[in-house]
Amino acid sequence: MSQPHSAPSPSATQPFPASRKVYVEGSRPGVRVPMREISLTPTRVAHGGVPSPNDPVTVYDTSGPYTDPGVAIDIRAGLASLRREWILARPDVETLADVTSDYGRRRAADPKLAALRFRDLRKPLRAKPGLTVTQMHYARKGIITPEMEYIAIRENQSRDLSFARTASDGQGGRRPGVDGRLWDQHPGQAWGASIPDRITPEFVRDEVARGRAIIPANINHPESEPMIIGRNFLVKINANIGNSAVASSIEEEVEKMVWATRWGADTVMDLSTGKNIHETREWILRNSPVPIGTVPIYQALEKVEGKAEELTWDIYRDTLIEQAEQGVDYFTIHAGVRLRYIPLTTRRITGIVSRGGAIHAKWCLAHHEENFAYTHFEEICEIMKAYDVSFSLGDGLRPGSIADANDEAQFAELETLGELTTVAWKHDVQVMIEGPGHVPMHLIHVNMEKQLKDCHEAPFYTLGPLTTDIAPGYDHITSGIGAAMIGWYGCAMLCYVTPKEHLGLPNKEDVKAGVMAYKIAAHAADLAKGHPGAQARDNALSKARFEFRWEDQFNLSLDPDTARAFHDATLPDHAAKVAHFCSMCGPHFCSMKITQDVRDYAAQKQLDEQQALEVGMKEKAEEFKKAGAEIYR
Amino acid sequence: MSQPHSAPSPSATQPFPASRKVYVEGSRPGVRVPMREISLTPTRVAHGGVPSPNDPVTVYDTSGPYTDPGVAIDIRAGLASLRREWILARPDVETLADVTSDYGRRRAADPKLAALRFRDLRKPLRAKPGLTVTQMHYARKGIITPEMEYIAIRENQSRDLSFARTASDGQGGRRPGVDGRLWDQHPGQAWGASIPDRITPEFVRDEVARGRAIIPANINHPESEPMIIGRNFLVKINANIGNSAVASSIEEEVEKMVWATRWGADTVMDLSTGKNIHETREWILRNSPVPIGTVPIYQALEKVEGKAEELTWDIYRDTLIEQAEQGVDYFTIHAGVRLRYIPLTTRRITGIVSRGGAIHAKWCLAHHEENFAYTHFEEICEIMKAYDVSFSLGDGLRPGSIADANDEAQFAELETLGELTTVAWKHDVQVMIEGPGHVPMHLIHVNMEKQLKDCHEAPFYTLGPLTTDIAPGYDHITSGIGAAMIGWYGCAMLCYVTPKEHLGLPNKEDVKAGVMAYKIAAHAADLAKGHPGAQARDNALSKARFEFRWEDQFNLSLDPDTARAFHDATLPDHAAKVAHFCSMCGPHFCSMKITQDVRDYAAQKQLDEQQALEVGMKEKAEEFKKAGAEIYR
Repeated sequence: MSQPHSAPSPSATQPFPASRKVYVEGSRPGVRVPMREISLTPTRVAHGGVPSPNDPVTVYDTSGPYTDPGVAIDIRAGLASLRREWILARPDVETLADVTSDYGRRRAADPKLAALRFRDLRKPLRAKPGLTVTQMHYARKGIITPEMEYIAIRENQSRDLSFARTASDGQGGRRPGVDGRLWDQHPGQAWGASIPDRITPEFVRDEVARGRAIIPANINHPESEPMIIGRNFLVKINANIGNSAVASSIEEEVEKMVWATRWGADTVMDLSTGKNIHETREWILRNSPVPIGTVPIYQALEKVEGKAEELTWDIYRDTLIEQAEQGVDYFTIHAGVRLRYIPLTTRRITGIVSRGGAIHAKWCLAHHEENFAYTHFEEICEIMKAYDVSFSLGDGLRPGSIADANDEAQFAELETLGELTTVAWKHDVQVMIEGPGHVPMHLIHVNMEKQLKDCHEAPFYTLGPLTTDIAPGYDHITSGIGAAMIGWYGCAMLCYVTPKEHLGLPNKEDVKAGVMAYKIAAHAADLAKGHPGAQARDNALSKARFEFRWEDQFNLSLDPDTARAFHDATLPDHAAKVAHFCSMCGPHFCSMKITQDVRDYAAQKQLDEQQALEVGMKEKAEEFKKAGAEIYR
Repeated sequence: MSQPHSAPSPSATQPFPASRKVYVEGSRPGVRVPMREISLTPTRVAHGGVPSPNDPVTVYDTSGPYTDPGVAIDIRAGLASLRREWILARPDVETLADVTSDYGRRRAADPKLAALRFRDLRKPLRAKPGLTVTQMHYARKGIITPEMEYIAIRENQSRDLSFARTASDGQGGRRPGVDGRLWDQHPGQAWGASIPDRITPEFVRDEVARGRAIIPANINHPESEPMIIGRNFLVKINANIGNSAVASSIEEEVEKMVWATRWGADTVMDLSTGKNIHETREWILRNSPVPIGTVPIYQALEKVEGKAEELTWDIYRDTLIEQAEQGVDYFTIHAGVRLRYIPLTTRRITGIVSRGGAIHAKWCLAHHEENFAYTHFEEICEIMKAYDVSFSLGDGLRPGSIADANDEAQFAELETLGELTTVAWKHDVQVMIEGPGHVPMHLIHVNMEKQLKDCHEAPFYTLGPLTTDIAPGYDHITSGIGAAMIGWYGCAMLCYVTPKEHLGLPNKEDVKAGVMAYKIAAHAADLAKGHPGAQARDNALSKARFEFRWEDQFNLSLDPDTARAFHDATLPDHAAKVAHFCSMCGPHFCSMKITQDVRDYAAQKQLDEQQALEVGMKEKAEEFKKAGAEIYR
């Protein structure tokens, strides 16, 4: 265990090819929303015509300042405090003289930890006594915060593409039910909410006020770039990182966090269970451009040396405050694991698979008492509202196998999470609900339906679900299927699963594989939901593909490095990247080339589809044979 | 280009760990159905109790004789002719003195090809004049062929697992709507067909007679192990292989075929477009335990040196006969690409992306004539019925991008494929229908619905579909999502997509990645369809996982090698594979371990869930603290 280097590896920070960071300014100071702009080459036109330019494509960018060559990165100093002025400008916070947590103070005072500790620790902020500093609180008071304006700009960016509006006969932003095609309606639509054509700051405020979306934004994590989780916005993904007693170091975890956000993680959960997790978390928070979530019970258990029965409310409470003052944006709290539900799990094939759920269950049985996170829930709300930590109400009884999906234990807990949502909202604390897990496809829909109903439309945040148990080593795929489907049905955030799930801790490569599978799932869901503008990137990439603009195809893809490497594996020369064919079919067989010939021919002859049918094509055919032969060679 | 070695690589043929080949005998000579039996270790019981044995799990096995150590493999001799006696026992075939195809004769007579040529070429079989040798023909006459009995045994195997019947309170074979849980009904169910509890030979016959399933089984490919494609059977997958002008050799293609079937490919398509494809195909057929499909237009185009406009019906016809006499089991025929539909594609973002579709389109435009595969369709049927080649009616106008999904061109062609199905059935020729392609999730369902309706329930065979265009390099995942969904909806066979799709030709590693993603999709679909017994393998694996039987978990997985390697990456010691924890959480944090403690405790105290609630658990809690502490250390 050692201090991180001053910067993440170049592989995690180099700008994407043909891309530059652009910032869109809002109406207020500091509202400056980063996006990635991908420039494209022009479309070549046959017979020496003037090439036709292609507009750049701007994409949602979670990678933070790391991919901006204009920003100097020093892990030891942390990122700039983007939101700090907004927070301090509000009259409801105060700066504390010292951290509140006993444990936090002991760690800060331990000279043995000096070498590991993040250098410039800030004094924590907290709500003034009796006040609430949550985005939900502001939203309900009708206040549009800078965070909300920032999010509105961020969520709109794909709508601003000219391509989205003009390509393919205006189908760029194809909406279900609008373009006259048959489509499937699902709960996300049926539950009275819909994605507007344009996101306004007021829409953001309204969704947060209703509890239908959350903005995880702890006042002690001002480095984070505001983002929103709700089903009327882009579907988000979370990447889990974290060391354990067995493996990993602080540097590796910071690197993984930067790496995960590079590839598109919207939030990161630090699930560390090993040593020095307090210090590791500090490093991650100070350097994270995305919200950070944790499961505080893991650290609480560390404090009692792994003996669940020795946990107490006081230790748990101190841990919540410790982490809230470091800046954790959302806590997984397993308050729905009630004593009475535990026996419902004994006949399962895989019992309780949630670590947090198992810890609470063991404690409940050892003491034969109700779960302290349930009995002290209002006190937890008091802590959350003082820092704006959002609840991620944990599904401690989620199914761990196909056989256990949608059983009584799972749904009993979900109903309790609905009750707790109401309690949290009474305190203006933001809430999302965690969901399974392992669920076969035909049982996924009802999960979404029941969650919306029981939890009053609070955002759903699911782990997959995995649609089969038989492919360890490929669970990013077994779960990517379920994730895409539940995202379409209305799930707001998808927690990634890596290929190492069930087998070991993910390394960097696994983190990337997990993020990629989940970016695909989330984007597929956005398309199926008819999110305006979501299809613009697909259209731009497909147009580039069809026109053999290989570089553009690589650069528009989720992972340009892999796309390019796969192409180069068979045809590495530069010439191959401008050739009108590829290695799959060779120069004479390419269907896209033939189609282009067909289209060129039609364009050349100024035939539209009606004319083509109406004019005597026999005559034209003769011309085509000559012209076509020329084009084709 | 050189002759293959005498055997595929050991990596492609070594038996799977803890597995042995078993054969189930049918009622007729030679009906001897191979399966893979995976043996499991016993469940260890706490406190020195007697370990409880776990029954072996038998899985569907597509790998043919290659994984049977008792069979001597010689690629140069080919596989044993499993079906030849059944075929010759029928009174309707005759052995030809020579191949019928002109091209085939020229290749056979060319001394330059001697070194490449498969050694022991058999004389081709053909139906006696005026007779029909298709499985559909027999089925309609009420004949149950040995192929049908073989298939019934093969399809039943997962139902025969004791685990399927007994585990988890009898939920092993959970059926939608049967176990009282809410579930989604989809076209596969709604269209009047349902999966029986047990597949009988008569059921196989009836499904084939109705055209709802096909048995691709060319009388000149007696090496193949009979299998069935239909939505009331297990969902199947196809792997594409094939060289092109740019890359690959015969040896590589044979190796890829063996490799693909090892990992679960139910059929293989040889899409070669390069040199020597006649000879390559011969090698593949003589060594393939699974049905082989081709797209004959590719070879026909080779014969006119890539000039589509020079294609003729005679060249195409000769190619069909050439390949039928080699033993190809199904042909993709793009007879639905009608002249009038071609202009419908000119406004698409990606025009025509099917190679076959593009070739026919170019020919149609060049001649301004109707597609010769359409105009000569009855003659094609005459050829197919003489060898029992099944139609795979090609979707030459499938969408190549999200923007083009479900458009007029695609659906117009689908309607024509429905007409052609009726024509083929008039000749007792078996038919399946190819489908897209690129389709966003909300537009998938209607594809299945329309296919069932327009094509009279002929089996659907789709390429993916890809649910987004933005992830080249990961299209096994973008398409695995769509494949799983359409499989659930009723698609009978899923054509794999590899990570190299759109970028290059797949190597062995890509073939495996594609097969794995599609085995997952197909199995997820079987689970969602409530296929009896499909869940048995999931249950066995999950039970092993829960009980920390690591070796069993690896061995039950789709890819034991990868599962084991991933585990060993963090905890390589043998000790770790018998430990009651793993690298994810370390020894103190394992939720499964804690759950097991909870369950052990409940079992030990003989508490069932009711008792647990009824007895005063306060008292028990004290005992648990002591007992639990002991178990936990």
